[in-house]
Amino acid sequence: MIHFECDYLEGCHPAILQRLEKTNLEQTTGYGTDPHCERAAELIRLACEAPESEVHFLVGGTQTNATVLSALLRPHQGVLCAATGHINVHETGAIEHGGHKVLPLPGADGKISAAQVKAALDGHFNDVNHEHIVQPGAVYISFPTELGTLYSLQELEEISAVCCNWEIPFFIDGARLGYGLASSRCDVQLKDIARLADVFYIGGTKQGALFGEAVVFRNTALARDFRYLVKMNGGMLAKGRLLGIQFETLMEDGLYFKLARNADRLAERLTDAFKAAGFELLADNGTNQVFPILSEEQAHKLAEDFGFEYWTRTPDGRDAWRFCTSWATTDRQTDTLIQKIKKL
Amino acid sequence: MIHFECDYLEGCHPAILQRLEKTNLEQTTGYGTDPHCERAAELIRLACEAPESEVHFLVGGTQTNATVLSALLRPHQGVLCAATGHINVHETGAIEHGGHKVLPLPGADGKISAAQVKAALDGHFNDVNHEHIVQPGAVYISFPTELGTLYSLQELEEISAVCCNWEIPFFIDGARLGYGLASSRCDVQLKDIARLADVFYIGGTKQGALFGEAVVFRNTALARDFRYLVKMNGGMLAKGRLLGIQFETLMEDGLYFKLARNADRLAERLTDAFKAAGFELLADNGTNQVFPILSEEQAHKLAEDFGFEYWTRTPDGRDAWRFCTSWATTDRQTDTLIQKIKKL
Amino acid sequence: MIHFECDYLEGCHPAILQRLEKTNLEQTTGYGTDPHCERAAELIRLACEAPESEVHFLVGGTQTNATVLSALLRPHQGVLCAATGHINVHETGAIEHGGHKVLPLPGADGKISAAQVKAALDGHFNDVNHEHIVQPGAVYISFPTELGTLYSLQELEEISAVCCNWEIPFFIDGARLGYGLASSRCDVQLKDIARLADVFYIGGTKQGALFGEAVVFRNTALARDFRYLVKMNGGMLAKGRLLGIQFETLMEDGLYFKLARNADRLAERLTDAFKAAGFELLADNGTNQVFPILSEEQAHKLAEDFGFEYWTRTPDGRDAWRFCTSWATTDRQTDTLIQKIKKL
Amino acid sequence: MIHFECDYLEGCHPAILQRLEKTNLEQTTGYGTDPHCERAAELIRLACEAPESEVHFLVGGTQTNATVLSALLRPHQGVLCAATGHINVHETGAIEHGGHKVLPLPGADGKISAAQVKAALDGHFNDVNHEHIVQPGAVYISFPTELGTLYSLQELEEISAVCCNWEIPFFIDGARLGYGLASSRCDVQLKDIARLADVFYIGGTKQGALFGEAVVFRNTALARDFRYLVKMNGGMLAKGRLLGIQFETLMEDGLYFKLARNADRLAERLTDAFKAAGFELLADNGTNQVFPILSEEQAHKLAEDFGFEYWTRTPDGRDAWRFCTSWATTDRQTDTLIQKIKKL
Repeated sequence: MIHFECDYLEGCHPAILQRLEKTNLEQTTGYGTDPHCERAAELIRLACEAPESEVHFLVGGTQTNATVLSALLRPHQGVLCAATGHINVHETGAIEHGGHKVLPLPGADGKISAAQVKAALDGHFNDVNHEHIVQPGAVYISFPTELGTLYSLQELEEISAVCCNWEIPFFIDGARLGYGLASSRCDVQLKDIARLADVFYIGGTKQGALFGEAVVFRNTALARDFRYLVKMNGGMLAKGRLLGIQFETLMEDGLYFKLARNADRLAERLTDAFKAAGFELLADNGTNQVFPILSEEQAHKLAEDFGFEYWTRTPDGRDAWRFCTSWATTDRQTDTLIQKIKKL
Repeated sequence: MIHFECDYLEGCHPAILQRLEKTNLEQTTGYGTDPHCERAAELIRLACEAPESEVHFLVGGTQTNATVLSALLRPHQGVLCAATGHINVHETGAIEHGGHKVLPLPGADGKISAAQVKAALDGHFNDVNHEHIVQPGAVYISFPTELGTLYSLQELEEISAVCCNWEIPFFIDGARLGYGLASSRCDVQLKDIARLADVFYIGGTKQGALFGEAVVFRNTALARDFRYLVKMNGGMLAKGRLLGIQFETLMEDGLYFKLARNADRLAERLTDAFKAAGFELLADNGTNQVFPILSEEQAHKLAEDFGFEYWTRTPDGRDAWRFCTSWATTDRQTDTLIQKIKKL
Repeated sequence: MIHFECDYLEGCHPAILQRLEKTNLEQTTGYGTDPHCERAAELIRLACEAPESEVHFLVGGTQTNATVLSALLRPHQGVLCAATGHINVHETGAIEHGGHKVLPLPGADGKISAAQVKAALDGHFNDVNHEHIVQPGAVYISFPTELGTLYSLQELEEISAVCCNWEIPFFIDGARLGYGLASSRCDVQLKDIARLADVFYIGGTKQGALFGEAVVFRNTALARDFRYLVKMNGGMLAKGRLLGIQFETLMEDGLYFKLARNADRLAERLTDAFKAAGFELLADNGTNQVFPILSEEQAHKLAEDFGFEYWTRTPDGRDAWRFCTSWATTDRQTDTLIQKIKKL
Repeated sequence: MIHFECDYLEGCHPAILQRLEKTNLEQTTGYGTDPHCERAAELIRLACEAPESEVHFLVGGTQTNATVLSALLRPHQGVLCAATGHINVHETGAIEHGGHKVLPLPGADGKISAAQVKAALDGHFNDVNHEHIVQPGAVYISFPTELGTLYSLQELEEISAVCCNWEIPFFIDGARLGYGLASSRCDVQLKDIARLADVFYIGGTKQGALFGEAVVFRNTALARDFRYLVKMNGGMLAKGRLLGIQFETLMEDGLYFKLARNADRLAERLTDAFKAAGFELLADNGTNQVFPILSEEQAHKLAEDFGFEYWTRTPDGRDAWRFCTSWATTDRQTDTLIQKIKKL
């Protein structure tokens, strides 16, 4: 049985384990104040071409979203996002637990547009009863989205401009950032993300690390007292160096992007195979998630040898399924799956 | 420079790294539903002689305290604890962020007594204005306490009886549980903890793991929907197996307790050395934290070669410092420190 | 200028002011423990034919919704309601401030159906990832709805049955309860509400009182420690008797329903007038809110002499406006408006 | 039976009821946007000699404290106050429900000093672990305190200076502000309060109104979006004019202070009577609360004819009781009580 259910099926890239072993008996201070975190932050600032930005390391995505939003929003404010956004549907209400309403916008392909954001802000402040309504206080997008789709550089520029204009922060969830940036269909670079978002994160958990998300604040005013918020939200790892060591390893020599590129390449092969075999895709996206539309029978057939996830029912009543590649997926595993797809 | 600042200075016991390496390319489901977590939970139930209990794995202590208390308390309830309790002083208000008041009781040596708990409950419900006051809804203690001190079996029995009588849960923070149970001065066994607490946890972070706390619910009614709460509180690790693998390793062949015993033994050597050199201790406790009272000059002298922490000013105006041993501390490191103590 | 903007434009029914004056120098205990609250509660239990139910008095609707839901939900639970529900759109996120997600269902005419509720619950528990999703923990409807529409007895019976089956509480927001029950189109009686809801409230603010909402718990288990929650949520009025005195007055001799009947009758007259003049209504509902669709020009014309509110843009791009009658509206005021409508 | 239990035993000053009656059928907009609120705010600004300040009206004290603090604090911040402060002991954790820790300072006579505030701030920021500790983000005092005691002008100046220096807001709970300012022992004027506090409120509930607290922001930057917060916290009264009408009445011709003066005068008479009869007072304060130390027998004797409250056990094991006068207390009632005191 070969598994394609998600991109966190295995441990981590071997280079990380080696580094953990090599540094294991070093004695360092806790809570992210060690030299590994410092160096990892510096490597990230370099990669982002954002020398003034502030970098913090957290353990997981839900925690990161809740913590960052607790820094961005006042109590009566909510966060605009796509209806399919992770914070809206798959975090057991972590944002609401922190007191903030998630303000979903109907999204095509998991994306929202600058026009939607502008309309929501206009609509709010033009409503005479706006004080009775949650005030939009930040914009959240995922890059790539939960459907693996990508924003173009122009789309990001436009959303960023609206946020800038309304003086509300623009926050990009990069749990799969590398898979997005490494896509052959992507016209956005890391430095663009770092320039356009007020705050974003570089996801490690799904891209080769054991765990870890690196939060980058370009707008450092928003990072004021952020470490208090990390601690309060239960996200301050005692042995913080584990995060530093992992991101050091990933950011050296561009390992992070090499791993992502491999996953995207294999996903493209899967995409081509599904298309060649006559299958439609829920979202033809160019990143590491492939969403073929399969009949129950076809899915059953594939499930004899492969793990994958049911995703959703399409508006016209068919079923979409999800196959993920990752930093750990091999050509061989992919070939085996492609053979089977051909036989469907 | 040899460091004794805390018990999370190094990475983890080598056996854990080996196991992580060995299992690295296994493909498992996420979020703690994998066979490693299952087996670790079973080993813990066995060690606790509590076959019916429910075990959950979280990443860190603050997160665990906030999550467990969100399961135990209704919104208008608070938690009784020692004024020195970790939840009261060192978690940046994580409990209050979850909406609950921490109700501190003045503690001697970091402990509270059954009599204090009973008095607080009596006092609350006998106050005619009790509906205007936060209702005590749970009792929290740390074992060992933040000062390294231990409750006797009888003291735990008594607190448990009061909680049982008042039908409020008894929650034991075991961030350093092993260091407590392994102490030569301890008359409590793991099975006693598992019998007397409604819920407690076995700390990994400070006792040989990279990170991780294993929460044990003897009172499984309190664990209803607990996984939702873990996710909501940002504590559900995507690669949950990392927690399972670590606790498997620690619970096999009693490694956890062997490591703790070593730390306690070295701390006893330090304690004896400080006493022999004529120093008083803030709390003479028998676990892995040693709190000598040193003049600034003496502390400076030691700080030339050793790392340790300022702890607190004593009521009579002297300064107490903290030295921690851990699973990683060696006899050699301890000898070196003892030599220096003798020379003070 | 005659105002029809809302149903809280005036003070209160004169009988209430008289009673306040008569009782003004009585000395009573505070916080709702006085004989007036006791008697008002008894009158309400009688009117509901629910002798075992528990009655609490709060000041306003948002406060009541937040407080009741804090009693009904565990932290990881949300509340199902119509997308147009007051808690979802007009309470500045009070429910989320309390930590709970509002789970909106697309509603026709402001209503939701038992089938929708059942589908949401089925959908949640059948999703393999349900622990990553907010759990529906209560159902909230408004009777009448925010669009003035009414549930039939059968519809309420069906929703109640689903809630009962899934063991989640059914909560009815009765901010305008009287206007609903007094409608000539309503086949529901107060005793039905009291039998089918686990908890509901009888709105005073919009129906003749200065302020005040009477919460009725048929399911008294849910009311455990409710007074703590009222205090914690800032809803415990020091001079609680003001609420008792007002509800005593309203519930004696059915004054509450007489006032509501008057408002509904006048709204019917307005409805007939708009229809006779060829106007469509956004929702033809039979209660005290009338939503004609008017051109901007027509609205301007009416606005020369009358106050009313812009409501919403219809899907086909026209504008709906709201006119409210209330306990205080007179036939004379209504006649004047009808004359003008005829001339549009 | 004559009652002295508290200062909210009766309805309201007759002038308020008359005004309510006179204005009853006026049609006004809701939520505090009416001319009565506007005029009341203007009268308050005049009385405060603070023409630029912003005034908001809320219903009750707990609600006001929670709402103001939600405006002042970021999530990781708490509020410094006396251990006896109302927010710490008698609001069922409303502040913690909003996510903030209350940081109590040991107070003599219910007061805290500038030195204590400074020490707490110094202590926090000098602690190397401060990011693990709740950050003091505001200072709260009650004027007069919960024990009826008064801060001198110099004490207020000093606290204000510390707050100013540390750039944290100074918030004064004025639930009984009038009783404080009207005291013959008070050297503080309303304009001083308005000059020294960033935000404070003028309590109506306990001083002649049916209910209502007028919040005054001298530091108007802190009032940004305050109406959203009022709504979110359930404190926005639909018929907001009720608050405006009451404060209009109280602030015209200094009625508020005349009523307070009467209560203080009668309390002084009681104080003198207790002292003359040889009784000690828990706090000899000069405002409207009198706290004699009485044996159980003496208390029983008085309780035959008078209502009053048990307050607390003194450190030396005696019992203190509370007698309140109010705007409604008469010389005749006071005389009757004094006769009885003489006979004890």
